[in-house]
Amino acid sequence: MENDRNGPFQPARRGFLKAGGAAAVAATALGKAAAAQALPVVANDDPYRAVEPFFGPHQGGIVTPQQSHTYVVALDLTTDKRDDVIGLLRAWTDAASRLTRGEPAASIDGPDDRPAGDSGEALGLGAARLTITFGFGPGLFALEGKDRYGLANRRPAALVDLPRFNGDQLVPEKTGGDLFIQACANDAQVAFHAVRQLARIGSGIAHIRWGQAGFLSGPRDETPRNLMGFKDGTNNPSIKDTQVMDEFVWAGSEGPGWMQGGTYTVVRRIRITLEHWDQMERGFQESVFGRQKKSGAPLGKAKEFDALDLEAADKDGNPVIPDNSHVRLSNRATNNGAQILRRSYSYNDGTNFYIERWPPWRQETEYDAGLIFIAHQRDPRTGFIPINERLAKFDMMNQFTTHIGSAIFACPPGARPGSFIGAALFES
Amino acid sequence: MENDRNGPFQPARRGFLKAGGAAAVAATALGKAAAAQALPVVANDDPYRAVEPFFGPHQGGIVTPQQSHTYVVALDLTTDKRDDVIGLLRAWTDAASRLTRGEPAASIDGPDDRPAGDSGEALGLGAARLTITFGFGPGLFALEGKDRYGLANRRPAALVDLPRFNGDQLVPEKTGGDLFIQACANDAQVAFHAVRQLARIGSGIAHIRWGQAGFLSGPRDETPRNLMGFKDGTNNPSIKDTQVMDEFVWAGSEGPGWMQGGTYTVVRRIRITLEHWDQMERGFQESVFGRQKKSGAPLGKAKEFDALDLEAADKDGNPVIPDNSHVRLSNRATNNGAQILRRSYSYNDGTNFYIERWPPWRQETEYDAGLIFIAHQRDPRTGFIPINERLAKFDMMNQFTTHIGSAIFACPPGARPGSFIGAALFES
Ligand code: HEM
Ligand code: HEM
Repeated sequence: MENDRNGPFQPARRGFLKAGGAAAVAATALGKAAAAQALPVVANDDPYRAVEPFFGPHQGGIVTPQQSHTYVVALDLTTDKRDDVIGLLRAWTDAASRLTRGEPAASIDGPDDRPAGDSGEALGLGAARLTITFGFGPGLFALEGKDRYGLANRRPAALVDLPRFNGDQLVPEKTGGDLFIQACANDAQVAFHAVRQLARIGSGIAHIRWGQAGFLSGPRDETPRNLMGFKDGTNNPSIKDTQVMDEFVWAGSEGPGWMQGGTYTVVRRIRITLEHWDQMERGFQESVFGRQKKSGAPLGKAKEFDALDLEAADKDGNPVIPDNSHVRLSNRATNNGAQILRRSYSYNDGTNFYIERWPPWRQETEYDAGLIFIAHQRDPRTGFIPINERLAKFDMMNQFTTHIGSAIFACPPGARPGSFIGAALFES
Repeated sequence: MENDRNGPFQPARRGFLKAGGAAAVAATALGKAAAAQALPVVANDDPYRAVEPFFGPHQGGIVTPQQSHTYVVALDLTTDKRDDVIGLLRAWTDAASRLTRGEPAASIDGPDDRPAGDSGEALGLGAARLTITFGFGPGLFALEGKDRYGLANRRPAALVDLPRFNGDQLVPEKTGGDLFIQACANDAQVAFHAVRQLARIGSGIAHIRWGQAGFLSGPRDETPRNLMGFKDGTNNPSIKDTQVMDEFVWAGSEGPGWMQGGTYTVVRRIRITLEHWDQMERGFQESVFGRQKKSGAPLGKAKEFDALDLEAADKDGNPVIPDNSHVRLSNRATNNGAQILRRSYSYNDGTNFYIERWPPWRQETEYDAGLIFIAHQRDPRTGFIPINERLAKFDMMNQFTTHIGSAIFACPPGARPGSFIGAALFES
């Protein structure tokens, strides 16, 4: 299987676009849809200059080769007006099309109708392959039974409420959300800047519920390592394989028309007790994952991309890849062929402080670090949910991880220039 | 004045070293001081391959051109034994010399005497210009009046306890610490990896009090912008000017001999209410700083590195650079010539959630983001303290910032191969 992840600062050599001369036109005020036109483009390898297209049949940031940084955010709608929601999605589409070209969301002097313009911290940084992906949470369709926007009967069956999984320790303020924005770029400030502009545009209509910065390290053509020291992403389905993407990632004709070409996204904030993990021997760590630390190869194999042999046994008859190892439990062969496209990032928020619950009530500090697990799929009912049900029960890794945040979103297909993200949902 | 900051992925072209062939020798177990020898080196411009020297008259990470990422951590000593502290500093010196060459701290199979080896998440990433800077907090010399290690009478006068400043809202779990480690690198994972290894080596002797990841964005040769959108670092003293560094940064013969060639480091965790700031007009923001947003030039001037004209007045006689602007209040001309070397990083820890203290007790989410302010100086009594006393009282920026963490450390001079950081402090 091939590795499609791009490490940081190593944009793939195909399909990237550069904002050409015409991109230098001054940013226009919000709402001028005319600015949202395609631009003359040239291929470019510079991680700061490279541009990902915003408009198209699919949204960016899903099968896009993974950038080195993300900022993800969930917002709650505070308006009761359907037209406010439509207006917001229009303004977001317009701003996102500019931001992804490396332009400010608005003039830094502020558009006429708002107190402040683009906040400016990304000036001079370039597009850095920014993608902005929008998603709709269950609360857009109905909140506590209330059909705020006349959309209750348009909620896709695949946009289920996630069940409670074994061991979940979800905190409400890191969970859920009516709207979702995932900004990915080759630079942390570019990604965060995009979310800040979009959040400010939404003020009075939607407010942030939770936000999270994430990163991936790694030089170039190698699979990046997660904070547990293991290569992460090896056995992802190939984003180049459009047939597999059509089968497992993109929503099809089985659901509502407005979601065709979209995807369902599950986000889990998973804390890792790194202090504890760092005390474990390498051999044990490898049996937890079922893969070798250094090479990333499956246990019993030599190379990272060698296929798992789930039947292999050692001379005592024990499975080479342990029964409760992470890769055995999550592999498609043990999950009715289910595949999901993982596009996760590490997070590292400094330290948490707490007082132990039992005597001697010591004060403890722990790393507040882990994985922002992000998975895209055609249907979570055959994707994330059954896989995570098994993992939550049996995965040896659970000794070191805690799921503390969770959310699910329907990410509609991409927009055409002149239209806006999710437009078809609002056509009656 | 010249800008000596290096943006990410743009190592300066002088003095960087590359781990050559000999660096490929397997990492040796802890304590083998023989490994701590100089290596054959070659100049290298690759941000992942470039190496900063660990041994030398000064520690790295102080006048080193700033890398793109940091992880800073403060630890509390839990031992009562002086020899434990010495042993820890020896082991740290040894591990740091390896880590800064891009080698694991120990074999990933674990050294003989410890359960686990290097945690492995930096395998293949290279040194990425890693520097590791160690510092000593007041608690090393005496904790609550208790002289744990026979060092009470060696505490330098310049290592004062910081006074309480106007508006401080310090939280104890982000403040203070007996020991300090600052790891800076061109990659977030390389910096954090270094701290994780050193923290594990210290287990049973010192435990983490607080930790914080930070980053700087910016393409190459430009001054990076902070999260408020302004170029930050413009008027720093030049790290190339060794005379200025000797006068303002390096401790001299006025203090204890073991600190000569070291520096005093102040760390402040400063939260910025970005939501609030993002509602302000650019013109107002510029008067807060006294500089222009886009160019970074002082108000009334055209170019970023043009000198401040603090006397200039507009036609109504008002100062062009406002009285309570940040740069006027912090400029050396208004602080008895005091200069400090700022080497700060932005931080971005997602969002905080709180319930308003007054009716209607709304739930609010705010960005948990701001500046890890780091300043090095020869003496905080003439450096950070008087400057911050004025800023804390008058700076217009205070409307948007809150100091929530604080610490001060004596960072000793660099070590010679075979010796260890701070060795002279323990010579009786
Ligand atoms: C902190 C949490 C997690 C960590 C550190 C982690 C890490 C890893 C690693 C190192 C691999 C092996 C390399 C690879 O193929 O990518 C892997 C594979 C995989 N993981 Fe996870 N994972 C985590 C959580 C999850 C969750 C919550 C799910 C889904 C519910 C999941 C689904 C998968 C799948 C489907 C594979 C591929 C297995 C295969 O076919 O070989 N992981 N993960
Ligand atoms: C969130 C907190 C802060 C932010 C965002 C900030 C930002 C800035 C900016 C944008 C400049 C102008 C460009 C430059 O010369 O670097 C500046 C200058 C400066 N700042 Fe700050 N600063 C902060 C806190 C502090 C603190 C706590 C101190 C010291 C107590 C300080 C000391 C200085 C000094 C000495 C200068 C140079 C002034 C001059 O000589 O022109 N800053 N700061």
